Amino acid sequence: MTTMKKTITLLALAFAFVASASAQDLFTPPSQEGWTRTTSTQRQSEYPKINADGEYWFRFKAPSTAKDVKVNFCSVDFPAQLDAEGYWNVITKSPKVGFNLYYIVIDGVRYADPGADVVYCNGWTAYLEVASPTDSYYQMQDVPHGEVREHWFYSHVSKEWRRAYVYTPAEYETNPDKRYPVLYLQHGAGEMEQEWTHSGFAAIIADNMIAEGSVEPMIIVMNNDFVYRPGDNRGRLALSDTWSENFSDMFIKEAIPDIDASYRTIADPQHRAMAGLSLGGMLTNNVGLGHSDMFAYYGIFSGGVAEHPEQIDKKTVKLVFETCGELEYPERIQTNVDLLNSIGIKAETYVSPNTAHEWQTWRRSLHEFLPKIFKD
Amino acid sequence: MTTMKKTITLLALAFAFVASASAQDLFTPPSQEGWTRTTSTQRQSEYPKINADGEYWFRFKAPSTAKDVKVNFCSVDFPAQLDAEGYWNVITKSPKVGFNLYYIVIDGVRYADPGADVVYCNGWTAYLEVASPTDSYYQMQDVPHGEVREHWFYSHVSKEWRRAYVYTPAEYETNPDKRYPVLYLQHGAGEMEQEWTHSGFAAIIADNMIAEGSVEPMIIVMNNDFVYRPGDNRGRLALSDTWSENFSDMFIKEAIPDIDASYRTIADPQHRAMAGLSLGGMLTNNVGLGHSDMFAYYGIFSGGVAEHPEQIDKKTVKLVFETCGELEYPERIQTNVDLLNSIGIKAETYVSPNTAHEWQTWRRSLHEFLPKIFKD
Repeated sequence: MTTMKKTITLLALAFAFVASASAQDLFTPPSQEGWTRTTSTQRQSEYPKINADGEYWFRFKAPSTAKDVKVNFCSVDFPAQLDAEGYWNVITKSPKVGFNLYYIVIDGVRYADPGADVVYCNGWTAYLEVASPTDSYYQMQDVPHGEVREHWFYSHVSKEWRRAYVYTPAEYETNPDKRYPVLYLQHGAGEMEQEWTHSGFAAIIADNMIAEGSVEPMIIVMNNDFVYRPGDNRGRLALSDTWSENFSDMFIKEAIPDIDASYRTIADPQHRAMAGLSLGGMLTNNVGLGHSDMFAYYGIFSGGVAEHPEQIDKKTVKLVFETCGELEYPERIQTNVDLLNSIGIKAETYVSPNTAHEWQTWRRSLHEFLPKIFKD
Repeated sequence: MTTMKKTITLLALAFAFVASASAQDLFTPPSQEGWTRTTSTQRQSEYPKINADGEYWFRFKAPSTAKDVKVNFCSVDFPAQLDAEGYWNVITKSPKVGFNLYYIVIDGVRYADPGADVVYCNGWTAYLEVASPTDSYYQMQDVPHGEVREHWFYSHVSKEWRRAYVYTPAEYETNPDKRYPVLYLQHGAGEMEQEWTHSGFAAIIADNMIAEGSVEPMIIVMNNDFVYRPGDNRGRLALSDTWSENFSDMFIKEAIPDIDASYRTIADPQHRAMAGLSLGGMLTNNVGLGHSDMFAYYGIFSGGVAEHPEQIDKKTVKLVFETCGELEYPERIQTNVDLLNSIGIKAETYVSPNTAHEWQTWRRSLHEFLPKIFKD
């Protein structure tokens, strides 16, 4: 065959392949019956949808030039199929329960699905909340609800107005003379200060547990982990070179005094706790346990283990609570907690069954931690 | 020429064109000096950036298959250019000041720029806040800051827990015996209950004006416009067929009594106002002025005009304030306000210079409205 003939043959084959692929693979939508919008389908969108079998139906547009269109759902790729109306479709069950991020992937580039609500996780990301057959403590219930307040304070460290979210329990408004203990609760490297309530349902968990009497009414303060001094160099995940020191100066010298001045707190170490997930757990270790005369209770959720146990103030510290997902490093926290107990520091572990480095681990960790603090 | 020769020639031409286009049009980035992240560049991103000349630099990935890549910024298309690292770039000044949405458009399909923070405007949308040379009242200042609270209440109309955002003034916490007037403030058809504070800076405006003494300390309650009864049919913009009636039942019978029970309000018509933008202005007209014995002050911002003036309760109503952008329908509100005044209802207009149906109009409208209410 000549070069010319080869070229023509290849072209013809290519066209035939494209034509046949389009005809054969066109998505045939199921009946709309039984499909409803999900809890995170944004108001103006009809998709994603869910049916009674727990199947999700993603449907979205892609550029006309797109070749390889997928939905990446809980880190699993699902190939999308074009329908006769020009939308791409995926129908699938969720790879796992709980809080699940997903992405539209078009020829290798990720986008948020315009059909869904978003949270901040390494950027604004579409999500689906997949009901758990075992975990009901974070569902909205008919109990008195506290409030999450957007609270602003000025930081001389970062030379900016900073936002903290502050949960006040439902009874806060009707007990104007009562003062409350405070839990400082930090997010992870991927998140922002709003995600303990948006993704983690911290306020709903606290409302439900305070209503059932298992948890003391408390204030929960959620600060942003990231503190940049003017001129700071930012690295991976937007951390600065001195992220821990910067956070410490903002948190210990500015945020805590501001909260004690702005809310009816019990401003002593026995009524102050610190916890965090991942990077927030590392801050709980570095900054919180680094000031162990200031906090009586510590929660390190998927955030490593307590370091420098010999420097911990045994008179002040009542509990170091270390958790992780079963698929993370349960042995590592057990070893550390055994060490802490052996030198007279009360410490406990919680291992979240069958979960990894994810919100289901951290919701469960908070649910286990809250009943253990401020009880003395 | 034979068909084969023609094909080869066309192929060669095509390849030559692609090669030459790539070489000629490749974007040459400017020096990074003088470029900084914008106020809405998301934490983990370096772009969009701004320089001292007020130019914006957008930089993002697009699918390898993309042919036509643009940034749609304030409804103006700017063609993007590929750089040697495989990112697409646009550098441009903003078409206008204020709050500006923008989209990445890839072969006709819109996406939110993953590099920016998002607000809800007909879906989650990237934005840039472009400083205004004339409007400083919505900039964060060193004044006492109120709080915006996430407040939940159950609606028997929509059979769901509903979220309202409630602004309480800075002094609310330190005056536990003082009661406050309430402004109910509604968003437009494109938005959600958080956008009066996220996009409109309502809390910052109130903080600044209360601090300077031009505005009475007040509570501002921001409810979602959309109320669906179970089984409601949703139409364009997610409105139901009975959107106004649904809202009325939720708002008048549930939301207002709940706010009066939950906050230290002065629960009488002379200390209650209602305002809204666009659809929220229509609700202020339909539902608020439809209960004109309940509210003394009304703000209709780009939301049409007061209808049925003969039904307005002249004993209760102190002011009907109608506004719009200069590029909207100033004559229409003037005619209506003249009519209201002619029948003994105090009414005023405000026309926002050189703005259209946009947040800069509504920020200015709120700024003009707040000093006029609760002064008697």
